[in-house]
Amino acid sequence: MTYCLAIRVDTGLVFCSDSRTHGGIDNVGTYSKMHRFGWSDQRHFCLLSAGNLATTQSVLRRLRQDIQRDQRISLRTVPSLDLAADYVGSIRAEVQQRHARRHSEPTDFTASFLLGGQIGSAPPGLRLIYPQGNAIHESSEHPFLQMGEVQYGKPLLDMVTSQWSLEAAARCALVSMDTTLQSNLSVGPPVELLILTGDRLDGGRHLRWGSEHLFLRELRSQWHQGLAAAIGRLPPFPWEESSLNREKTYKNAR
Amino acid sequence: MTYCLAIRVDTGLVFCSDSRTHGGIDNVGTYSKMHRFGWSDQRHFCLLSAGNLATTQSVLRRLRQDIQRDQRISLRTVPSLDLAADYVGSIRAEVQQRHARRHSEPTDFTASFLLGGQIGSAPPGLRLIYPQGNAIHESSEHPFLQMGEVQYGKPLLDMVTSQWSLEAAARCALVSMDTTLQSNLSVGPPVELLILTGDRLDGGRHLRWGSEHLFLRELRSQWHQGLAAAIGRLPPFPWEESSLNREKTYKNAR
Repeated sequence: MTYCLAIRVDTGLVFCSDSRTHGGIDNVGTYSKMHRFGWSDQRHFCLLSAGNLATTQSVLRRLRQDIQRDQRISLRTVPSLDLAADYVGSIRAEVQQRHARRHSEPTDFTASFLLGGQIGSAPPGLRLIYPQGNAIHESSEHPFLQMGEVQYGKPLLDMVTSQWSLEAAARCALVSMDTTLQSNLSVGPPVELLILTGDRLDGGRHLRWGSEHLFLRELRSQWHQGLAAAIGRLPPFPWEESSLNREKTYKNAR
Repeated sequence: MTYCLAIRVDTGLVFCSDSRTHGGIDNVGTYSKMHRFGWSDQRHFCLLSAGNLATTQSVLRRLRQDIQRDQRISLRTVPSLDLAADYVGSIRAEVQQRHARRHSEPTDFTASFLLGGQIGSAPPGLRLIYPQGNAIHESSEHPFLQMGEVQYGKPLLDMVTSQWSLEAAARCALVSMDTTLQSNLSVGPPVELLILTGDRLDGGRHLRWGSEHLFLRELRSQWHQGLAAAIGRLPPFPWEESSLNREKTYKNAR
């Protein structure tokens, strides 16, 4: 399947996506699910994709064509993030219907998208575009959106508040992603991360790591140590000795 | 739905279950899903239940009747954990088929069980009994089993090794449960915990907490602080300042 997420904090946006696609466990591929569109000092978008690969590729192709052909409506011209979400959603619906008309047997052609970005001086934002065409945005109480295998990594994102720094949110996004990578074979590397600083409109920082990259290995190792330490500090049961003796029991945590 | 789990470490077994049942979001109830059977110095079982409540209640009723009526085969007489799992599975199949025969419309009468325990001097063990009647056991590489809403809390259980103490495993079980409680409304308190020390055959330690219990609130608070600290210690991105300044960014973690 997929795991994609985006977080909005006061100082900007963080996006994170995996790269595994499959048409069955014996037909696994690697495709980027992070698609960036930007015009310096004007507007920047990040579009994360999930679902039927042929549908998402058709949608991306159309988005790029509309820009190249200077169409009246494109990601270059839409005046707001909501209208950008409508525009992407309508293209997706068109593509899905076209494929469905050509095919007589029931097949899932649906795709979802997680769109975020900033247009001019408008505040940065996020939109989750459902296969049905409607969309939701994040909120201050729920400053993130996810797609795909969302459950393994959600408890970590629940900790984030809008006051966190971009880098703190990005680290949380990465452990949320890595937790999911370890638990679900349909989610796999490379992992991509994009950090867009609000009001900078400069395309942000984009990073990409394969599974053996030192940074991801170090992140995973430090995270496991941190979790073991966190468990070691949990309150004792009524019958236990003082917590000083409890640190020893976690040496074997993997 | 449900969340139940059990862990086997070298020194014994840990069981943890929630208590929420529902027939739709407007029909929520509270029923214990942890059923204990024990005979001092001889054998102890813990049976966690999930699925159709009428099925699980029928199965439990039959298990108790077989014991009370001194039936040739009951949890008091089965010679091994595998045969105990077969016995429970066969009663479950009989109950499911009986209910299905009386009902013409498709309805899900299935139930799953997580059985664990120790018989005499045989090693303690766990069995996950599927609705289809077959069962699996834990392994040294995967020393736990789960039922229900398993994804939110699984990454924490992945840390456990068989060398952990019973109390360490129990704390891990509780945070796995609490993480799930916070993320899925179909899983709810009271939370029950059973710790069976291997070879003691004394019924173990059983605890039960409502959502407002001080211990659970303290556990959740300490866990969130531990997670925030763990995120704070993750490796910096190449462009960041020294980690000394990073601790400040987590003051607002919830």
